[in-house]
Amino acid sequence: MTHPLRIGVAGLGTVGASVLKLVQRRANDLAATAGRAVRVTAVSARDRRRDRGVDLSGYQWFDDPAALAAANDIDCVVELIGGDEGPARQTVETALSSGKHVVTANKALLAKHGVALARMAEDRNVALAFEASAAGGVPVVKTLREALAGNVVTRVSGILNGTCNYILSRMELEGLTFDECLKDAQRLGFAEADPTFDVGGFDTAHKLAVLTSLAFGVKIDADAIHVEGISSITPLDLKMADELGYRIKLLGVAERTAAGVEQRVHPTMAAKSSSIAQVMGVLNAVTIDADAVRSVTLIGPGAGGDPTASAVLSDIADVARGLHGAPFGKPVDLLDDPARAPMQRHEGGYYVRLTVVDRPGSMAKIATRMGDHQISLESILQKGKGPRGGDGATVPVILITHATSEAAIRAALDEAQGDGVVTEPPQVIRIER
Amino acid sequence: MTHPLRIGVAGLGTVGASVLKLVQRRANDLAATAGRAVRVTAVSARDRRRDRGVDLSGYQWFDDPAALAAANDIDCVVELIGGDEGPARQTVETALSSGKHVVTANKALLAKHGVALARMAEDRNVALAFEASAAGGVPVVKTLREALAGNVVTRVSGILNGTCNYILSRMELEGLTFDECLKDAQRLGFAEADPTFDVGGFDTAHKLAVLTSLAFGVKIDADAIHVEGISSITPLDLKMADELGYRIKLLGVAERTAAGVEQRVHPTMAAKSSSIAQVMGVLNAVTIDADAVRSVTLIGPGAGGDPTASAVLSDIADVARGLHGAPFGKPVDLLDDPARAPMQRHEGGYYVRLTVVDRPGSMAKIATRMGDHQISLESILQKGKGPRGGDGATVPVILITHATSEAAIRAALDEAQGDGVVTEPPQVIRIER
Repeated sequence: MTHPLRIGVAGLGTVGASVLKLVQRRANDLAATAGRAVRVTAVSARDRRRDRGVDLSGYQWFDDPAALAAANDIDCVVELIGGDEGPARQTVETALSSGKHVVTANKALLAKHGVALARMAEDRNVALAFEASAAGGVPVVKTLREALAGNVVTRVSGILNGTCNYILSRMELEGLTFDECLKDAQRLGFAEADPTFDVGGFDTAHKLAVLTSLAFGVKIDADAIHVEGISSITPLDLKMADELGYRIKLLGVAERTAAGVEQRVHPTMAAKSSSIAQVMGVLNAVTIDADAVRSVTLIGPGAGGDPTASAVLSDIADVARGLHGAPFGKPVDLLDDPARAPMQRHEGGYYVRLTVVDRPGSMAKIATRMGDHQISLESILQKGKGPRGGDGATVPVILITHATSEAAIRAALDEAQGDGVVTEPPQVIRIER
Repeated sequence: MTHPLRIGVAGLGTVGASVLKLVQRRANDLAATAGRAVRVTAVSARDRRRDRGVDLSGYQWFDDPAALAAANDIDCVVELIGGDEGPARQTVETALSSGKHVVTANKALLAKHGVALARMAEDRNVALAFEASAAGGVPVVKTLREALAGNVVTRVSGILNGTCNYILSRMELEGLTFDECLKDAQRLGFAEADPTFDVGGFDTAHKLAVLTSLAFGVKIDADAIHVEGISSITPLDLKMADELGYRIKLLGVAERTAAGVEQRVHPTMAAKSSSIAQVMGVLNAVTIDADAVRSVTLIGPGAGGDPTASAVLSDIADVARGLHGAPFGKPVDLLDDPARAPMQRHEGGYYVRLTVVDRPGSMAKIATRMGDHQISLESILQKGKGPRGGDGATVPVILITHATSEAAIRAALDEAQGDGVVTEPPQVIRIER
């Protein structure tokens, strides 16, 4: 029997407390699977006295997580502090540089420093494992890194933020506004007091950055991601989507194109019949398109203490069994530099909602601008009327385009705004096949 | 650089040919990931001259797959022959006993001899890997064995046979009979000339046996599985399911109960809103319920050359990287003996379609029998009339019960048949939450 795997857990929020409980609860099975005992021996957090529903007296306590990471009697550090700098980064770097395995749920840290950290892990032949960093309990990291080794992945797309999906689901099902749903989400603990990180799409972008690297064998390049959030989505947009056979989802999408890898986060019209569109509430879902397997979809809880701890335990079990390779599948030196495909190249159909001045000739001007940019329209829908006809009144107009480029749409809409027939910034939502 | 992983492929049907092509196509990436070259060096099949769309001249040829399995210059044998005895078993046993890794897609072999084969692999510290044996390209084996290591799994359920799901989907969408859809499936190559293995539920049962062992840490016990197929499903059943908010799916279900592990394969009423019910056509889907992660669903192609080869390559990549543990997660000696929960104990609601003699008092007799067994009815639907009233005419009657046991339902229906008010064997379909 090999010596026990001694784990130090840095960060004891909801996930950290769940990890402590799960490692205890699963001790026998983990030992059976790994052929060695697995136990948490040390913990670190900001406040020792906070009630976490778990007895900490059996663990060595560290005020400083970096000291925990440097301790001689720990084999594996679980970093659950969060943040892309500061104590989290220091803890992970200290652990790796002192030859310890690292398990982390920290997508922000990976999005920013993933390449350098992976190099450190490879140099010392230790694990840097991060199943919990993307889509919570959904085993998408292992699937991309290991299960699809025989595939050339062409596309990864998914619902990676439960807060946004919860808000969009409620807006759709109950006809509520974004602000109403956000407030409810905050009250129920599904959204932070400052919701920007979630509803602005940035959390999705961090997760997408991790998945892109695994899927395409490229170095993480989070700065290349085009990010739009969901705060501009209105009940009318959701109603129109429904009528047209779509649901609006905030998707992270990474695609291999002739020009390189395109990464984008934005609200999307997803066909109701697609697996992704069925995913409601706080669930996450990821669809991976690849040459051999064609398409695989994984659905499950993307957040929460126990589901995220489940992903952390998956990594711990691998470390205990000695099952680890390069953090991103291939060694960092063999990862390609990311060739960014500029967002303007995205080709597909669009849903466009315009606030149009209600006077003769407005629609003709808009249609002409569209035609000038070779944009063909599948349908034009005018919903209702402004308060009254005449000067200054506006009406919402919905355009559905056939496949065209982002650049063409943006140019046509800029010109229509210049013509003075469109009063507010247009709502533009991509339609995914 | 370690020496190359030399692979022998035994069985060159559709999947075997895809494996040869994929290993060639992915050679560079597999080498980058594994840190060693991965190549097929030898093959074996019944007919050397058959055109498989792949050039075999670069591979050593064996007429006898067991001779390939015994060859000194092979490290890993991929068994794609099929069947639970004969050449497949001989090939796998020869490979393991001569210290070679084995990758197989053979669920029938595993269902019958999985425990003994796993023991052989463990004794020699080689891999016995079988991602391709259940749900084709869907990475459910790796998910159960590795990703959910932190969980106590409570239930595994899924659509594990694409042929059945294709037939049920077409019956539902086009109102066709079972026989009509089966003929189409045979014409399109989705069903065998002798379809019993698929439509009788036996293929699903083999796959379920493998998943049950992984999920619950018990020895494979395929004989314990209660198996019903889909050939008795009628267009009326599908129509009624639709009206009641369900779809009929052939599910394999394994559940941890107080009495042990219950394993069953049968047509099921699945709520339309569930992820499983959305899965149409030849796709497979598996939902895993577990304490920490709550519920994870995986959807993808369950058959076909390339998707199945994708699963084989996943195992090959793990072998090449040296990532293998006990075939069923825990060593065989630590797997529990399966405590069979008898099928009669299954508790849930039921859909019952009866062919009832159309005369006064028939329904009262049936209702009384139900009441005698404490079965409470949620609804009773009589659809249409027989050709005319009077003696001998029959009408279809649908009963929806609240939760009750299989034993109670069977007893009540036996008695109703004894009363002479029901003319044909009743159709009984379990309703899943």
